[in-house]
Amino acid sequence: MSRIDLNCDLGESFGAYTIGRDEEVIAFISSANVGCGFHAGDPCVMERTVRLAKEKGVSIGAHPGFPDLMGFGRRGMNVTPAEAKAYMKYQIGALNAFCVSSGVPLAHVKPHGALYNMAAKDMKLALALAEAVYEVNPRLIFLGLSGSKMLEAAQQVGLTCASEVFADRAYNADGTLVARGTPGAVIHDVDECVRRIIGMARDNVVTAITGEQISLKPQSICVHGDNAEAVEFVKHIRESLTKEGIEIADLRACTE
Amino acid sequence: MSRIDLNCDLGESFGAYTIGRDEEVIAFISSANVGCGFHAGDPCVMERTVRLAKEKGVSIGAHPGFPDLMGFGRRGMNVTPAEAKAYMKYQIGALNAFCVSSGVPLAHVKPHGALYNMAAKDMKLALALAEAVYEVNPRLIFLGLSGSKMLEAAQQVGLTCASEVFADRAYNADGTLVARGTPGAVIHDVDECVRRIIGMARDNVVTAITGEQISLKPQSICVHGDNAEAVEFVKHIRESLTKEGIEIADLRACTE
Amino acid sequence: MSRIDLNCDLGESFGAYTIGRDEEVIAFISSANVGCGFHAGDPCVMERTVRLAKEKGVSIGAHPGFPDLMGFGRRGMNVTPAEAKAYMKYQIGALNAFCVSSGVPLAHVKPHGALYNMAAKDMKLALALAEAVYEVNPRLIFLGLSGSKMLEAAQQVGLTCASEVFADRAYNADGTLVARGTPGAVIHDVDECVRRIIGMARDNVVTAITGEQISLKPQSICVHGDNAEAVEFVKHIRESLTKEGIEIADLRACTE
Amino acid sequence: MSRIDLNCDLGESFGAYTIGRDEEVIAFISSANVGCGFHAGDPCVMERTVRLAKEKGVSIGAHPGFPDLMGFGRRGMNVTPAEAKAYMKYQIGALNAFCVSSGVPLAHVKPHGALYNMAAKDMKLALALAEAVYEVNPRLIFLGLSGSKMLEAAQQVGLTCASEVFADRAYNADGTLVARGTPGAVIHDVDECVRRIIGMARDNVVTAITGEQISLKPQSICVHGDNAEAVEFVKHIRESLTKEGIEIADLRACTE
Repeated sequence: MSRIDLNCDLGESFGAYTIGRDEEVIAFISSANVGCGFHAGDPCVMERTVRLAKEKGVSIGAHPGFPDLMGFGRRGMNVTPAEAKAYMKYQIGALNAFCVSSGVPLAHVKPHGALYNMAAKDMKLALALAEAVYEVNPRLIFLGLSGSKMLEAAQQVGLTCASEVFADRAYNADGTLVARGTPGAVIHDVDECVRRIIGMARDNVVTAITGEQISLKPQSICVHGDNAEAVEFVKHIRESLTKEGIEIADLRACTE
Repeated sequence: MSRIDLNCDLGESFGAYTIGRDEEVIAFISSANVGCGFHAGDPCVMERTVRLAKEKGVSIGAHPGFPDLMGFGRRGMNVTPAEAKAYMKYQIGALNAFCVSSGVPLAHVKPHGALYNMAAKDMKLALALAEAVYEVNPRLIFLGLSGSKMLEAAQQVGLTCASEVFADRAYNADGTLVARGTPGAVIHDVDECVRRIIGMARDNVVTAITGEQISLKPQSICVHGDNAEAVEFVKHIRESLTKEGIEIADLRACTE
Repeated sequence: MSRIDLNCDLGESFGAYTIGRDEEVIAFISSANVGCGFHAGDPCVMERTVRLAKEKGVSIGAHPGFPDLMGFGRRGMNVTPAEAKAYMKYQIGALNAFCVSSGVPLAHVKPHGALYNMAAKDMKLALALAEAVYEVNPRLIFLGLSGSKMLEAAQQVGLTCASEVFADRAYNADGTLVARGTPGAVIHDVDECVRRIIGMARDNVVTAITGEQISLKPQSICVHGDNAEAVEFVKHIRESLTKEGIEIADLRACTE
Repeated sequence: MSRIDLNCDLGESFGAYTIGRDEEVIAFISSANVGCGFHAGDPCVMERTVRLAKEKGVSIGAHPGFPDLMGFGRRGMNVTPAEAKAYMKYQIGALNAFCVSSGVPLAHVKPHGALYNMAAKDMKLALALAEAVYEVNPRLIFLGLSGSKMLEAAQQVGLTCASEVFADRAYNADGTLVARGTPGAVIHDVDECVRRIIGMARDNVVTAITGEQISLKPQSICVHGDNAEAVEFVKHIRESLTKEGIEIADLRACTE
């Protein structure tokens, strides 16, 4: 039977600021990427989010980002690989403390925002991130963009890695994402998104923006819980996958 | 034979800013309290400091503080015990990641600055801090002010605790520190400081500011590496203790 | 004719985080207290908020707070008066730059959260804040809690000051606020709140929690725009005051 | 008579952290670029630095940087021009408050670190920075790299601009700086540095790394006060220029 993980960023609130419908979307996902205090999240939010994930039986991952709360970690920063590596360790360790104290394992790491996008293309940076994960805990799963340097680096370092795809993004013939801004880069038709996800999850294939059939073997689909509509979409994805006989399972199960 | 630990705050530099003569003072101490990024320290500094401590065979502790870099964690903040608890876990976890990746154990936790001073007197806060340590790792040693609520809380929670004394501070008859600002609170004569330390470490006794002999059983002496003179003083303390047949040993050895 | 200002905190969003219904509540108020980047607000939010206020003809004030984004400035910090003074100047100056570049005057300063609460009772702190305002611009109006040290300090320093009251808070016989947590401290009945506001604005009198009639001469009423219900309440207050022949006017007009 | 300004970054300490020998180097310079709290500096440091500059008769400029204290503003951040513009206004306004309250004018603005380097080459960013300065105060002088987009943008916007050169850096034939890392980019011989400065200040000429004579008309020379040796070098530069009959004067005098 086909299996796929549904991952979503959670725990990105900060102090008095709330972002994301964590309590709602968590019902439909299998893995939570939890903000670690650099681009989003604070210690109280992290504690609460880890408890919520434990209670709902959702697998927990660290979601480390750049030290740029003002930019929500979405702006590229010209850090050295050594700096990025230290930032990763710091944030993974911080989240892990809440996992340990809640008696629940930390399962994976998915870099956030600009750090994710930069590491997808930059092998030196990707290696620094993968090494950070490995040195903190070699049993952690590295979750990265399908076909990216991140996965290549994770394999090179000896980490289990998981490949993620996006429901609403178009792909180039080489398996990379069509850059935002390019016409057709984002797919707005919900049914089309669902068809593509099913195709990727069950048949390991998706149609490129240029028409070719591409082979992809994703372990996870990235979903969002930003607003009511997004949550509804995640629910719809989950139901559609289940109806097609595709099991929603966490990253550990999907990478075995 | 008598044994005592010498602990010093290390790893309190931040980015381009350097504070403390870590490389010099580390030669004379047995335990390092490493800044964890809230009041001081950053991930790169933490990594470097953990490596330095490992290389020099010095035991490592977390030194968590208030989220107040601008005030170096020295200003009281009216946080709730739950907030303080989460801040502790976050910082201990973050430092632990560097210990794990360097293959060296995290041995103790000593709160910093205003957090330390407030927890010394406030049992609710002290309990929150001790619980945080216990929940992250019950084998960590809680290092706190001799005769304070911190040690009481640590014992109540089930942690091994270590009592620290100050070389240059006067004590009240009840074993508490004479408040800074009170005449005689700080002892400036180096020889007098050393005599007092030896008395506390070997004979477990010190003379109160009011003349009484007080019983104290310290496991650790707090020293500083802020400047050349301070480093020289630590060296002198170490040599004086050794000459008196008092062994300098880390907290683990001193709490057995 | 009676006149009163309605002031509301605005521009407290930060980066990707949105807080407050600024665009809605601004229709009903006469003065905006704009976050200045320490407890809330960032430069882009400040720029946007100043433009919004200009467009809607709402008077602008600085709303400086403690450097504690994680606690939204609501937690007491043990800063020195000199530190508080410098923090005030920094934040007032920062906001003023956006006013100058938008061609709109900065009219008042209202400290935020814990800084406000502490300065209400602590004359040394209140004086530091008032001096900061005066030294940056002696024509700024200092908006503070009715009957508090803040207003006393502002007068002593030579600033025009404005006294603010709360629609939903009970008062002690001496004109101070009943502390939150005390039974009856917060008034939940909307009609009762409106009656009290009208009484304070038109007749300069309010009934204390202990039954006495208190004289109060407020220049401003503090309102909130946190959620739809709060905005509705502000609208209701405005309409009720207007119906009673009380003019809603900005602080400048109310302090003449 | 020839005239030139000597500018140096000051006020880059932060909280308990000290950087730079401000009190020593200020004796030899004519303009201080004061950190504004984003990459360095805090409100107390800013207040102190403005007073120091006033006392020593040194002209004051704002030295705004990226919001990256951990990286001291030296790391490129992928901000939008609108964000950069708002960050500039915020920081200039903040520093201006200390100038106003000390009764001393703010004279110029010089972007810091990565912001400076990026704006030197990127016209959109340079325009955003120049517009920010103009909109806050059109009489401020924009101090930027000789031959860079910054000066072009400042002129386009209508600002007085001042061109700065470096004592210890080699120039390409087109008047741009030889990139660090290129052999010969940094000139280590002190006498050679001084000869070049004199040539630039008096004769408006310097020899490119490729041997050509380049025309440059600098209004300011950038110097550093990081350590004792740097301060000594500034003193030497000042004395050498004076001996050659070149007057050290502030930016206002040098741009008239």
